[in-house]
Amino acid sequence: MQPSDHRPASLIPSRAVFPHRHLTGIEGLQPHEILFLLDEADGWVAANRTRAIADKRLGGLTLINAFFENSTRTLLSFEIAGKRLGADVVNMHAAQSSVKKGETLIDTAMTLNAMRADAIVIRHMSSGAVRLIADKVDCPVLNAGDGQHEHPTQALLDALTIRRRRGRIAGQRVVICGDLLHSRVARSNILALTALAAEVRVCAPATLMPAGIERMGVTPFTDFDKALDGADVVMMLRLQSERMNGGFVPSNREFHLRYGLTLARLERAAPDALVMHPGPMNRGVEIDSNVADHARSAITEQVEMGVAVRMACLDVLTRRPRGVAGWA
Amino acid sequence: MQPSDHRPASLIPSRAVFPHRHLTGIEGLQPHEILFLLDEADGWVAANRTRAIADKRLGGLTLINAFFENSTRTLLSFEIAGKRLGADVVNMHAAQSSVKKGETLIDTAMTLNAMRADAIVIRHMSSGAVRLIADKVDCPVLNAGDGQHEHPTQALLDALTIRRRRGRIAGQRVVICGDLLHSRVARSNILALTALAAEVRVCAPATLMPAGIERMGVTPFTDFDKALDGADVVMMLRLQSERMNGGFVPSNREFHLRYGLTLARLERAAPDALVMHPGPMNRGVEIDSNVADHARSAITEQVEMGVAVRMACLDVLTRRPRGVAGWA
Amino acid sequence: MQPSDHRPASLIPSRAVFPHRHLTGIEGLQPHEILFLLDEADGWVAANRTRAIADKRLGGLTLINAFFENSTRTLLSFEIAGKRLGADVVNMHAAQSSVKKGETLIDTAMTLNAMRADAIVIRHMSSGAVRLIADKVDCPVLNAGDGQHEHPTQALLDALTIRRRRGRIAGQRVVICGDLLHSRVARSNILALTALAAEVRVCAPATLMPAGIERMGVTPFTDFDKALDGADVVMMLRLQSERMNGGFVPSNREFHLRYGLTLARLERAAPDALVMHPGPMNRGVEIDSNVADHARSAITEQVEMGVAVRMACLDVLTRRPRGVAGWA
Repeated sequence: MQPSDHRPASLIPSRAVFPHRHLTGIEGLQPHEILFLLDEADGWVAANRTRAIADKRLGGLTLINAFFENSTRTLLSFEIAGKRLGADVVNMHAAQSSVKKGETLIDTAMTLNAMRADAIVIRHMSSGAVRLIADKVDCPVLNAGDGQHEHPTQALLDALTIRRRRGRIAGQRVVICGDLLHSRVARSNILALTALAAEVRVCAPATLMPAGIERMGVTPFTDFDKALDGADVVMMLRLQSERMNGGFVPSNREFHLRYGLTLARLERAAPDALVMHPGPMNRGVEIDSNVADHARSAITEQVEMGVAVRMACLDVLTRRPRGVAGWA
Repeated sequence: MQPSDHRPASLIPSRAVFPHRHLTGIEGLQPHEILFLLDEADGWVAANRTRAIADKRLGGLTLINAFFENSTRTLLSFEIAGKRLGADVVNMHAAQSSVKKGETLIDTAMTLNAMRADAIVIRHMSSGAVRLIADKVDCPVLNAGDGQHEHPTQALLDALTIRRRRGRIAGQRVVICGDLLHSRVARSNILALTALAAEVRVCAPATLMPAGIERMGVTPFTDFDKALDGADVVMMLRLQSERMNGGFVPSNREFHLRYGLTLARLERAAPDALVMHPGPMNRGVEIDSNVADHARSAITEQVEMGVAVRMACLDVLTRRPRGVAGWA
Repeated sequence: MQPSDHRPASLIPSRAVFPHRHLTGIEGLQPHEILFLLDEADGWVAANRTRAIADKRLGGLTLINAFFENSTRTLLSFEIAGKRLGADVVNMHAAQSSVKKGETLIDTAMTLNAMRADAIVIRHMSSGAVRLIADKVDCPVLNAGDGQHEHPTQALLDALTIRRRRGRIAGQRVVICGDLLHSRVARSNILALTALAAEVRVCAPATLMPAGIERMGVTPFTDFDKALDGADVVMMLRLQSERMNGGFVPSNREFHLRYGLTLARLERAAPDALVMHPGPMNRGVEIDSNVADHARSAITEQVEMGVAVRMACLDVLTRRPRGVAGWA
């Protein structure tokens, strides 16, 4: 089935529309399930702009943000999303956590569960840690990034941004460029965009290109100029400084020369191509300032969509435990 | 008077039932006062499970968690307890505190007081620091652990767990094993359990056994196997890693051999003996994984009771300032 | 126009009374605008004391405290102020921020803005950083201290304290003593107090006295005893330990001898002179304990006024975006 970007929202959405208890990744989601989350998120965008959120449907629920890895924007985004919906939001910072005292991850999970959390958002440095926790607790678990595995809400917010700015996702030629080898953002985006029938090209230096990536349904390029040809969306990845010093990239300057998005290079894409970046940006390394601040850039819109997407995910995943009609 | 574990809750509880302004320790509490707090906590357990907490009786009050020592579970537990009751909860982390700038503890206390806190929860590395602050402020102060002095809410949640799982506290044979010398958890538990007429045995290597501990009404053992004979409750203490390197304990392995709770050793206790640990656990050191995860283990239930106990303490201690009938 | 300290609050205050979108400093505020904020703050003082704050006028709004520099009391004060008014308050700590990942300040600002913050409170180590951010975002920005530039809410709370304790500000002889060279507190206070027609004297060792400070309308002294003559208010500044080691001050002991406020020295001021300090204090360095704890000391009252002032500023600055009648 070819997914439609513009299907009407289900009049009476029920559990059958989204049967999953957790959001551990994009993998395992059906195209219509992804689109359902995007439709739900779309509804929150306008509400956020007018501050007209009066229903506080998560009132009385406890949301725990358990971040074992530092983060600013993702934590802020989930915290704001939870509070806008009326939840009691509690942040657990790794720096002060029992993990430092040698407690196992499972024990930490059991502790959060025993406190009767109603939803747990997890960021962890190890791939698969979120799945491990999800299997042990009674409430919905949302993955806010685990190792090099997945970062599903990032992929959802990117998809929502593309759909709103380009009108549709299916058929769009999207180029994802940067450190594909270590990027959970790239991995979740590839899964979401191919599921929604975009044409996905990936571009990286050979040292940062995962072997066999074409099996994910994407076309690999090492030449950025060729990859950009006719692109509708150019999604740049953040170059982690730890990679730069790790032998993967000769230097920032060298990386910028071959893989940095400049205005000149952007000319190779379609005339109205969209520029995206998950942030935080290294201006002058993977992206030039005049590109980041260009009218075609959707970078701040991505941040805005992030709050809406997280509101939608928190709302949808707690419908069953909240006993919402049709979801019990 | 022999305390009864199952007296009916006072129909009209009033200030006479709990006349204390603060909760700085178990010391100084009468048995009926401890039982009153357990009864109140019991009422919150079911509410927490059903998310049916609608009265938000602390709405509009400001609760400050002033943690001068790192903590995850105790801070989370107090934060969740306060928010469930509707309070505005504000965390003050030591790492970012003026204390680092050389401010005295009293000045910090006066500052929190001047901001019109309605309750202050304190964790501090110095024994007696909480009492010092309580004497200086206008609002209730709750001790979340001070030095090697007391950790009263831990003792209350442990007592509640025992009462719910064993039916009563009086007459129960409870073995507390581990680093008794430095443990505020052990100290508060001994005070609470002896007040409630349990038979308390304590067990530790000679280097970690406080001199004259029998004056607290407990029986000291250095042989864990003997201490366990017929025990109804086995409460293991966390072995602090800083002790392991401090000459108190030869090695983790040696400690485990003599004082670790194994399944074989648990056989020496009563057939239905309860296993407890305040967390975070060092699995394989003071407790084996197959014991921690055993059906007899009440470890996650302890965490759950913690939130209920803290809700009860916050509610009860703020009744007078809130002008609740009978408490003014 | 000579400002009056006791004018009646405007019956129908409207945007004309306070036309500014942001509070980046005292500089640029008219005397009547400062007095309007003090009047508004005055109204919150009694409410804070009785916990009778029921209107939650910032309900549903998102307040982000973006602190790039550590702080305890200012952060707590803004957090409590926001929560008392019903806002969803989210703290962004520098220690965990993207800034550490090399993101530019402007990108951080754009991110907070895209999350649809309704007010942003900023503390930053660089003078002018707050103004920079204010120019880039759609919501009110409040300066919680930027470099050596300004700390306007501190000046407002100090002015409110003086007005309440001394009856008026105009004509009061105020001595500000300490590290004037690096103090944003001193700078904002000088601007506010001179605008309100106080007689301001400043006192510092020559190494810590800004050149040309008399152009701000104050009288400089290097002899503290002479400066104190007939003073109505003595405002001590915190001696930053980093200055002590920086060659500005020979030693704490030497500083205390010449510029520490002792009881003996306080005798030189007016008999009912008020003692102030922004905190945290170095007792025994810039101020003696028996002075800090003296009946004339207004130090804890300053903290209390801080919450009221921040409530007033948050309320007033969000009136236009909230569509309050007369402010749209």
